[in-house]
Amino acid sequence: MKSRVEIHYCTQCRWLLRAGWTAQELLTTFSDTLGEVALVPQKGGIFAIYVDSELVFDRKAEGRFPEMKEVKQLVRNKVSPNMDLGHSDTPVKSRSTKNEASLDTEACPNE
Amino acid sequence: MKSRVEIHYCTQCRWLLRAGWTAQELLTTFSDTLGEVALVPQKGGIFAIYVDSELVFDRKAEGRFPEMKEVKQLVRNKVSPNMDLGHSDTPVKSRSTKNEASLDTEACPNE
Repeated sequence: MKSRVEIHYCTQCRWLLRAGWTAQELLTTFSDTLGEVALVPQKGGIFAIYVDSELVFDRKAEGRFPEMKEVKQLVRNKVSPNMDLGHSDTPVKSRSTKNEASLDTEACPNE
Repeated sequence: MKSRVEIHYCTQCRWLLRAGWTAQELLTTFSDTLGEVALVPQKGGIFAIYVDSELVFDRKAEGRFPEMKEVKQLVRNKVSPNMDLGHSDTPVKSRSTKNEASLDTEACPNE
């Protein structure tokens, strides 16, 4: 049984383009190991990624959006642990997220 | 219960971009009426659209790809029959599909 990824995004924040980009990146990288990637419209500032119903990234918990290579590593770890992601396999750079977090964790401004 | 759309596409034909475009168009038009749009990688020249598990467009049966407004009409008819699609509500132009069909209905060249 191939895995299912869900990308939940806030329509009020207009994150469909980011969600669509993420879906296409994952389907390009994992074309043989994913059964589907579902785009799931939500509200309230949600940007969250699930693999087989398990939450692997939550923007509100992290205080930021994920880097794309981070998303690929999180999905890889669940669906294909031995897969080499090449240049996407380097560690995500640590960084101060304070300023960004103070913006990112605000509630959806449209609610 | 909101509806689920599935877009099945052939990875060997590299139709992910078309499928991703279609998903984003549907989620823009039906942001409040769709529960999710799933991109489903397949093989063998498949490009097919399902609404709540019911096939509404099949490239092999039609001998062509759908026009985007046609996709929106097909989805609207299932999920929100009274919704006005504006400029996407005009009839799909009839046309000879003979030449295109002879190309389109070929098997996936990568199989």
